[in-house]
Amino acid sequence: MTTRTVTAYDWVPDFAQGHVRDLRVRWALEEEGLPYETDLLPQGTQGKPENLARQPFGQVPALTVDGKPMFESGACVWRIAEEGTVLLPKDTETRNACLSWHFAALNSVEPSLTMMAMLFFQAMNPDIGEEGVAKVRPGIRSMAEKRLTQLADALGERDHLVADRFTTADLMMTTVLRTAESLDLLEPLPRLRAYLDHHTARPAFRAALEAQLQPFRENAPRYERAG
Amino acid sequence: MTTRTVTAYDWVPDFAQGHVRDLRVRWALEEEGLPYETDLLPQGTQGKPENLARQPFGQVPALTVDGKPMFESGACVWRIAEEGTVLLPKDTETRNACLSWHFAALNSVEPSLTMMAMLFFQAMNPDIGEEGVAKVRPGIRSMAEKRLTQLADALGERDHLVADRFTTADLMMTTVLRTAESLDLLEPLPRLRAYLDHHTARPAFRAALEAQLQPFRENAPRYERAG
Repeated sequence: MTTRTVTAYDWVPDFAQGHVRDLRVRWALEEEGLPYETDLLPQGTQGKPENLARQPFGQVPALTVDGKPMFESGACVWRIAEEGTVLLPKDTETRNACLSWHFAALNSVEPSLTMMAMLFFQAMNPDIGEEGVAKVRPGIRSMAEKRLTQLADALGERDHLVADRFTTADLMMTTVLRTAESLDLLEPLPRLRAYLDHHTARPAFRAALEAQLQPFRENAPRYERAG
Repeated sequence: MTTRTVTAYDWVPDFAQGHVRDLRVRWALEEEGLPYETDLLPQGTQGKPENLARQPFGQVPALTVDGKPMFESGACVWRIAEEGTVLLPKDTETRNACLSWHFAALNSVEPSLTMMAMLFFQAMNPDIGEEGVAKVRPGIRSMAEKRLTQLADALGERDHLVADRFTTADLMMTTVLRTAESLDLLEPLPRLRAYLDHHTARPAFRAALEAQLQPFRENAPRYERAG
């Protein structure tokens, strides 16, 4: 019997709750019906040797399958999809389209959203402030808007990026669009908003989200006492 | 006989020459000894329907294999590595490690370098200038330095990220480190610089680079006349 362990945090601040990237790996495992355990890292231990041995950048998630670790949410989800029967159609052409969109979510859509999010947090830093980011933001915002518009054009009226069914492409893109939504970038793009709502209503997504959030609730009192 | 076509530009400005991402796909094909043709896009045509049909974000590269297109350099290189015999060891554990590092290059190391590069270009924009980016840069620079240091720690004295041989992990990471080098971020990390020099000396890399640059030289006069 294969054993799978996902690393996650035992608690994170409010703004990150529901957005830590073990969510992607949990969601993929839920979709494929593959049981897993979690190894919850207390805050402050992510950079310790034990975690660096499985995640060289001191982050979560790592996925350990039968004692062999791998890392990067994109890599873990792809590996789960290859192993399973739900997220990745087997014919070559459809599989290649899933591979393209799986990377597109992470490398064509997410980067400008990550930059927008980083500017948001920098603006809250009193040493930087809104004034410190004001000149830089318009160019980055316009790149984010362009990528989202191109995505909306490619999707058209469909609910799925590939093959008229839910695949790893939709799983990855949905997690990226949750960031776009939290940055208020989806308002002019109702089709992307509908796509997001459609996929986040999946029972496997709800289960994965709840599984990430549950320990945060449990451990909040301990961190509040310490903080 | 399988036919493979890579899209690339027929010319780009100096700063981008040698850095357009068809380089990754060309390099992977050269390593695997897989012949390919190129479809060179004139500047200004990347957003036209013909290119959007194969690359929804109006970029290069796309890789068309026997008439079936795929896109995203990370996806194309992974697909080539799967198909070939050189870049991807077949045993599961080593393959999963390659998959992890393939994504790590693009998603843990490259993003902060892309932000640094974007700030570099924003600072050259007279409406923004050095003053406009000065407050934002230190946080992004320190993230880039942290990621590169973590990479150097994970690499140690080795020449390869996985399995003591050149794999898709090294191919992807080398292309990302070329950006770090052009941003002068490798000086404090001589091991990464040595790793970069080691892999860019590979004949397949030199061939791929020359194949990207050759049409730029040929077409430069035409663009200079127009510009």
